[in-house]
Amino acid sequence: MGSSGLNQKDILGIEDLERSDIELILQTARQFEEVNKRAIKKVPTLRGKTVINLFFENSTRTRTSFEIAGKRLSADVINISASGSSLSKGESLLDMAKNIEAMNPDIIVCRHSSAGASHILSRYLKASVINAGDGAHEHPSQALLDLMTVLKHRGSVEGLNVAIVGDISHSRVARSNIYCLQKMGASVSVVGPASMMPRDIAKLGVKVHHRLNEGLKEADIVMMLRIQRERIVQSPFPSLREYARHYGINHENINALKKDVLIMHPGPVNRGVEIDPEIADGPYSVILDQVTNGVSVRMALLYLLSGANSLSL
Amino acid sequence: MGSSGLNQKDILGIEDLERSDIELILQTARQFEEVNKRAIKKVPTLRGKTVINLFFENSTRTRTSFEIAGKRLSADVINISASGSSLSKGESLLDMAKNIEAMNPDIIVCRHSSAGASHILSRYLKASVINAGDGAHEHPSQALLDLMTVLKHRGSVEGLNVAIVGDISHSRVARSNIYCLQKMGASVSVVGPASMMPRDIAKLGVKVHHRLNEGLKEADIVMMLRIQRERIVQSPFPSLREYARHYGINHENINALKKDVLIMHPGPVNRGVEIDPEIADGPYSVILDQVTNGVSVRMALLYLLSGANSLSL
Amino acid sequence: MGSSGLNQKDILGIEDLERSDIELILQTARQFEEVNKRAIKKVPTLRGKTVINLFFENSTRTRTSFEIAGKRLSADVINISASGSSLSKGESLLDMAKNIEAMNPDIIVCRHSSAGASHILSRYLKASVINAGDGAHEHPSQALLDLMTVLKHRGSVEGLNVAIVGDISHSRVARSNIYCLQKMGASVSVVGPASMMPRDIAKLGVKVHHRLNEGLKEADIVMMLRIQRERIVQSPFPSLREYARHYGINHENINALKKDVLIMHPGPVNRGVEIDPEIADGPYSVILDQVTNGVSVRMALLYLLSGANSLSL
Repeated sequence: MGSSGLNQKDILGIEDLERSDIELILQTARQFEEVNKRAIKKVPTLRGKTVINLFFENSTRTRTSFEIAGKRLSADVINISASGSSLSKGESLLDMAKNIEAMNPDIIVCRHSSAGASHILSRYLKASVINAGDGAHEHPSQALLDLMTVLKHRGSVEGLNVAIVGDISHSRVARSNIYCLQKMGASVSVVGPASMMPRDIAKLGVKVHHRLNEGLKEADIVMMLRIQRERIVQSPFPSLREYARHYGINHENINALKKDVLIMHPGPVNRGVEIDPEIADGPYSVILDQVTNGVSVRMALLYLLSGANSLSL
Repeated sequence: MGSSGLNQKDILGIEDLERSDIELILQTARQFEEVNKRAIKKVPTLRGKTVINLFFENSTRTRTSFEIAGKRLSADVINISASGSSLSKGESLLDMAKNIEAMNPDIIVCRHSSAGASHILSRYLKASVINAGDGAHEHPSQALLDLMTVLKHRGSVEGLNVAIVGDISHSRVARSNIYCLQKMGASVSVVGPASMMPRDIAKLGVKVHHRLNEGLKEADIVMMLRIQRERIVQSPFPSLREYARHYGINHENINALKKDVLIMHPGPVNRGVEIDPEIADGPYSVILDQVTNGVSVRMALLYLLSGANSLSL
Repeated sequence: MGSSGLNQKDILGIEDLERSDIELILQTARQFEEVNKRAIKKVPTLRGKTVINLFFENSTRTRTSFEIAGKRLSADVINISASGSSLSKGESLLDMAKNIEAMNPDIIVCRHSSAGASHILSRYLKASVINAGDGAHEHPSQALLDLMTVLKHRGSVEGLNVAIVGDISHSRVARSNIYCLQKMGASVSVVGPASMMPRDIAKLGVKVHHRLNEGLKEADIVMMLRIQRERIVQSPFPSLREYARHYGINHENINALKKDVLIMHPGPVNRGVEIDPEIADGPYSVILDQVTNGVSVRMALLYLLSGANSLSL
């Protein structure tokens, strides 16, 4: 593989990417997939590069996935978490990021509870920024690993019907997936109670359903969103159990789905809420494939942004 | 050294190991001991292997020891601690472990407050699991490093009398050491108040003493257990000082011990409780040797489980 | 570069260093500066060395700076933070350090809230100790990076007037800088309210000012100290705003300074308190240069203490 060809300094959101960018990332990820299956899961590609995981929200999986991705590429990976950070001394996000940049990192992976946090960093920093989730805005690496998972099972998403189920309003996963799937030619519908649906969601070109059975009738792919327990309190549902009864996948409503449907979830699953345990572990579920593909996608992102000239695998 | 010969996917407890397994581990550890004394303490043996330290309980020493062991073997080591983990989002241990496994780690080192946690992981995961302490059940690497320490000072444990002193009921260190020492031919006695002694402890083939002087009279090796301050509250002792008076090693009762006795402690020592400071730092104490040997033993465990084909030192 | 020539096992404070030591460190740092600008920011110099970051106080920047420094030198770097450490189990600092030393680290970088913590470690440990800040005592790597920053802008500090402004009493940065700048031939004055000035500060050979405009009149270099919000409560200032009005650099008083003055700050800056935002980001500020130089200085310290025989860059 020659020079990267990715026409981006940063990965802030799927909205900014061209279809060709997405295809390049996925194609690169497929090459790293093979590295992750070797006995020696390590390539020297990013040797001497510094990757900073700058996490202002807890996220064991995403942080671990980026850390493993960076280390298998031979990068120096440094974790910084908000607890224990000088942000608790009243420092602004941007001040902190500028200080980190002054140490000459190559890539900063940022998770933050505020929408736009990574955009702010990208505007002021010379280092590449990967948005690892910013508030309810975007989580591009999640959408890319979801796409990779669908592609591995279906070959293409062109013309597929994808239903995204849950709290659409607060979900960066939903937003990134809507952009990504549409750019790749899928039809997307969103399913959830009116209280969890952004008012202008139809403007994104998605179909909106409020009843689960209607929303899933035509679905080739079902993406269940994680419900935040703390949000249920302010919702019309008196309990998680009520929510599960209306919007969870269980052994009854699974039978109404297409025979080759894929059930996806960004994790961690609230078992018995979004998905019944037997479904989460059953034949339709590709949840662990998503996690596996996450490492390959993140290796691809780190590689493509690193300016590494060649990929010797 | 050729292929490992360890007939185990996991290291869950000493109870599961054959004497020949223990001997192989110790023999391997002795080879790594030499690496740890070099100016360049690094071998390429586990290059491209991913080791996950999955710690649900705090343990600076054990985590650090495994981290150093992994890094000196050139493995990629990733630390995950419970604080900041998605377990706080209500995810089950097994769900979390399966998700981590989906990232293709080679070895998961697990510390958990529940007995059996590592066994559950080992049953469902293809990755190797090392139990770094599970509740009051086992802590096999501790017993192995303790054995290595005794062997280095005495050559053999065959026929030695080993006394383990303290809160036997709650001690995974006691349990692993009882199994380990007996398999290697030592006689083990346990010493402590009735309230800290499991009812059926004699079934393990150990002698039981409730008075310290009786318990230590014949001892070649004395293993002091760490007392948990929070357990003292529910015990018959009104204070740590009372406990120390009955079950601590001090400058008075040390004189009744054999002249070449070894005093051991898994750390961290409550100085003045289990052991008087001058004894902990004195000639009978091998406490810091234990720590040193811990790194070598853990390198041996990681190496033997890694499937690495050859050990180039 | 041949053997190091630094005549020190530890770096505990600037007070202990000769001018020739400081010059050697700075000269070494300048060589590493070039490494940090490369596409591949990595040299094999400390391969197989173990560096422990032992931090009992939070410090994202200093810990990150040492971690990056160590990794770019190819050392194995292990972070230990007080939260999650066995010190919370009642272990003494020295016990913990001895236990860590038993794992054969080469260098221990220690940050602690008590003055003298690193000195205690150095007295009892064979491993090299770098003091990364001990209470209100010293923070030598900060003074060295400050010196490097001044030298890069001015070539020499000989004869320069340096004003240090703020809470001198509680500042290890002030103390280390006073020693360092005086050894290198600068004149140092300290500026702050009487309540924040040590009684016997004049004994250190510095001029003392209580009014900002008098203190800064002759200054070639202004080092602003970070104000601790919790200390303001016990001070004569009713608020941070009051403090800022008397001791902050703003767009008014900046005009009274020399035209080529350098404004420095160890970070993180309380914007609008010690320094107005536009000044902190303005042409006089070298705050981010300080951070950049910090990595090079720490690489130099790790290298010079490591016993590495040769520096192949």
